[in-house]
Parts: sequence; structure tokens; C-alpha cells
Amino acid sequence: MRAVCVVGLGLIGGSVLRAAAAAGRTVWGATTADADAVTAAGFDVLDLDKALKRARKEDAVVVIAVPLPSVDGVLRKIGDFAPRCLLTDVVSVKGPVVEGVARFAPETRFAGGHPMAGKSASGWAASEATLFTGAAWVVTADEDTALDAWREVAELAIDCGAGVVPTTTQEHDAAVARISHLPHVLAAVLAACGADGGPLALSLAAGSFTDGTRVASSRPELVLAMCEGNRAALLEAVDDALGKLGAARGALASTGALSATIRAGHAGRVALDAYRAAGQAQAMIDLTAGDPLEELRLIGAQGGRIVGFDGDLALATLPVLPD
Amino acid sequence: MRAVCVVGLGLIGGSVLRAAAAAGRTVWGATTADADAVTAAGFDVLDLDKALKRARKEDAVVVIAVPLPSVDGVLRKIGDFAPRCLLTDVVSVKGPVVEGVARFAPETRFAGGHPMAGKSASGWAASEATLFTGAAWVVTADEDTALDAWREVAELAIDCGAGVVPTTTQEHDAAVARISHLPHVLAAVLAACGADGGPLALSLAAGSFTDGTRVASSRPELVLAMCEGNRAALLEAVDDALGKLGAARGALASTGALSATIRAGHAGRVALDAYRAAGQAQAMIDLTAGDPLEELRLIGAQGGRIVGFDGDLALATLPVLPD
Repeated sequence: MRAVCVVGLGLIGGSVLRAAAAAGRTVWGATTADADAVTAAGFDVLDLDKALKRARKEDAVVVIAVPLPSVDGVLRKIGDFAPRCLLTDVVSVKGPVVEGVARFAPETRFAGGHPMAGKSASGWAASEATLFTGAAWVVTADEDTALDAWREVAELAIDCGAGVVPTTTQEHDAAVARISHLPHVLAAVLAACGADGGPLALSLAAGSFTDGTRVASSRPELVLAMCEGNRAALLEAVDDALGKLGAARGALASTGALSATIRAGHAGRVALDAYRAAGQAQAMIDLTAGDPLEELRLIGAQGGRIVGFDGDLALATLPVLPD
Repeated sequence: MRAVCVVGLGLIGGSVLRAAAAAGRTVWGATTADADAVTAAGFDVLDLDKALKRARKEDAVVVIAVPLPSVDGVLRKIGDFAPRCLLTDVVSVKGPVVEGVARFAPETRFAGGHPMAGKSASGWAASEATLFTGAAWVVTADEDTALDAWREVAELAIDCGAGVVPTTTQEHDAAVARISHLPHVLAAVLAACGADGGPLALSLAAGSFTDGTRVASSRPELVLAMCEGNRAALLEAVDDALGKLGAARGALASTGALSATIRAGHAGRVALDAYRAAGQAQAMIDLTAGDPLEELRLIGAQGGRIVGFDGDLALATLPVLPD
């Protein structure tokens, strides 16, 4: 099993370090915070240059787990000290990471990653080896992704307990704009509209407002880094929301009828619940035949996951929705 | 203690019947569903005409607890059989109820009500005597509301375990548009935008999307009745949301910066949390001096509640926010 060098040991990076170690891999990390606590937990912490030199020497996979604004700086170091390493990341937005890799570490063998797991607490102290158990973990399969790099990164994600969702950088960013970044923007809009109603409105707020504004309590800096980093895709999602809300406004003003809006929303939520309640079918993809990356992307597009490998076969599960 | 006649014995009406009985009041009801179950639970169920005749004879307070589209029909019956009764309702939107009262039962002594309690299950089977414990319960105090009617309805709400929020019909409808109806519209828009992302997006949806779309799983007919019944106030709230979302769109497209949007939303949610964590100061309102209805409305405008009466004094609590 390939060794793992994790750069950035907050909630996600720390959990990758712990999970990969629990899977039996040799691990070490670099961090700008909590180094003593990581060491006290029994893990090797090196400064970034040394961590990357060791990655080159031991042919480790390097996992970038720093916030997006710090990614390019880490990539420069990788270009200097481990320029041909196997590389992935666990940063939310994928487009800017791909651009940074092309610019600063173009000779690495890269497949981007995004584990869909988290919790409200942050930092090393909140990290845990089981954070990814059962979670979806995107590993990007673009036209120019090397199949062996993709597979090795997918194996790391599976070792950490996750199921792997193969998709492109662009499709990932478009999807998370809709289901992760747009929810933050709409929660902020709703919270501001409610607060504009003054103490009377807040005193009457019940579950619908509480749920709809929950993520507005997240630290603004984190939300901004996430949303602004996915600017182009989020703009499309916001335009979609503006169009739908504008249609609701028009219907309310003209006929007073919100049926199309409310029923489309109900259908959307029912689709989510149906997806989550779906049965699972098994499928296998031969990684030696045809266009395996395209086959893998089709699994992701259908809401499926890669859950393991058997020789040259990738083992997949696909949701089976009731008719 | 005045007897209570509840018309409509679903979740809310059934819970009023149970709570008022538990407070020691004589109660009976009328219902189009579950009459056998209500009787089996030990309560008197009459047909609507007889229930209202008994209300007239025993000088009971009549509580309208039917869905908004059925309110006018009940009001006609009240005009026929108990035209001068003390009257309230527990329907969400207040404007259309006030209009119906003026048209069909203008001689009743009316103060509108809206208990801010509920749960996802509906119907008599879901009702419980403790549903309103600690909840806010709006009792409308308009310019033409009779103080003694307001007080008696408030006493019923307090007997049911709630704290009473005094405000006007118009201010109530504006507030619930922001904190109850707009959340449903935005949840519907978000759910539709997410589902438009297909199975890939649904497979990546985590907490922010799940929370933000939770109320989109409500029965569309109930949501439509609620939202469409509050058309004018909801239109204002939707316009506010459209303006804020449009501003976010413009900022994202021009500078890419969402700071104003995200920080205003964070401040709004912080205001909600601060309100809920606030300490409580006591206040008293002399119902025999000055303009007591205006004093009561000021309590509601400050996020306060009436929690009891002592002779001619109304006892209030007001939130005390940390500086």
C-alpha cells in the first residue's frame, strides 16, 4: 500500500491521516497548526519541505488538505520537491485546483478529490478516522486524467471508508454549486429577510425558518472561500434560482397561484428522499477495455459509486429507484 | 372559566380541545373527520349546528380550527347560530379571517389567534394536550379589537400552555410571510435547482441541502393554502428575497465577492440565536390606563409575550439581549 503524505491537518486532512493509518498505510503530515497535538497522537509531523522530500523518496501519494487560498503555495512546493508524485486534494472546489496543478506542478500524476463529509467543529481536534465511513468521495476523472492515478486515489478514498463518485472537474463544480453553495446563499438571503422583520418576526420563527437558515450560522470566511472559489458554477446556479423565484413572484402577483413552484420543489425533495431510500444494484467495469474513464463517469452520472477493485475490475453500486 | 367550542379537530384544533380540557374547561367540538376517535377519547362531538347552538346557550368561546378555505363556511354558520359569541381562530393567516368575520359574523366579539406550534404528522391522532407548552401564540390586537375579547382569548392561549404575542393582523401576516411562508418558497426553489442537477447532484447532497429543502417535503396542498392565503404579504417578502438574491448575483458576476450577502445572512441568524438565548425581563401593563392595546402591541414588537394576568394587570416577559 502506497504511503500517504497529508499537507494540512485540520478536520478533513487530519481525518485522512487517521483513516489512512487505520487502514494500515504509512502516513505523515505537514501542518501550520496543532503540530504538537498531532505528534502527541503518535503521528509524524514534518515541515512542508521535508514532508514533500520524504514523499518523493518513498513514492507516497500527496494529499493537499489546506484551504483553497493556500493551495497554490503548496503546489509550488510540490513542483519544487516532489514534482512527479501521485497527487490528490480534498479541497471543495475542483476547478481552481486543476488550474493550479497545471501551472505549478504539471508533471504530477493528479486526480482531484472531494470527500462529502464534515461537521460543524473544525481543526485537528475534531478529526477522526471514521469521518468518511459511508460518505461519498468524488475523485475526478477528466479527459486527461491518467487511469492509474485515478485508481490509486480512489483506493485511498475507499481505504478511508468512503464510496467513490467518478465525475469531471466541471460536473463536480456544477453539482456542488447546486447542492452545497447555493444552499448557503439562499440560507443567507432567508436569514436576512427574517431579521429584517425585527424581533416580532424572530419571536414567531419556527422550524421552517430555523432549518432554512441553519447553515447561515457557519463562519462567514469559510462560506465565502467555498462559494467565491466556485464563482462560475455558482453564478449559473444562482441564475437558475433567480429564474425560479422570479417565476414564483410573477405567478403570485398575477394569479396568486404558487402551484408550479411548490410542486416542483416537492418533486425535487421527493427525488432526494427516493435516491436515499433506493436499493443498490451491483455493476462491474473492466478497466482494460474500451474507455474506462467514460464508463466510470457514467456511474457517477447515475448516482452510483465505486466501492472496490478486483484485479482489473472496478466494483460499482448503482441506485435502484422504485418505479 | 369560559367553556370552549372547537370547530375542526385536526392536529391544532384537537390539541386545543385537549389542552383546554386539561386546564379544567368544559369543551366540545365539531369535526368532519375522526368523530368516533374523538368520542372514544372521552370528548363530546356534535354536528356543527348543534355545537354552535350549545356555544350560544353556554356563552362559550368558539375556536375556528379548520383550513383557511373552509373558514368562511364556518363563519356563515356562526352568523346563523352564535352571532354574538366570543370568537377566535387558530388559522395561520389572519387577514382573510378578519375579512370573513366582518362579512359573515360581524357581531361576534373577535380576536384572531395563531399558535406557532405544529409537527409533521397531522389529524386528530397527532393531537396532544401539551402541543402548545412554551410556544408563542399570536392573539391579534387591532385598532377595533375589544380589549375584553382580546384578554379572554389570551387567557385561553395561556391555559393551553402558550405565551401570547400581541400584534396586529397586518404585522402578523407580514412577519409569518418572512419566517414561515418565504422559507417554504425558498426551500421549493432550492429543491428544484438541486434536482435539476440530476442523480450526480443528489448523490453529493449533504447537510446544507438536506436542511434547506426539508420543508419542501410538506404536502403541497397545505403549503399552497398557507402561502396563497397570505398573498400580499408574501409578495413583499419574495420581492425582498429577489432583491437580495439579485444583489448577490450582481456581486458574484462583477467582483466575485459575496461578502455582503453572506455576512448579512450570518448577522440575521446570529440575531435569531441571540433572541432565543436572551434572558427574560418582567414587565406589567395596566389594562385600565391609557391605550392598553397599544401597550400590548409594543410588547409583541419587542419580541415579548404576555404570560398571565393579575387583576387588571397583564404580566409580560421581554427578551434581554446581551450588549
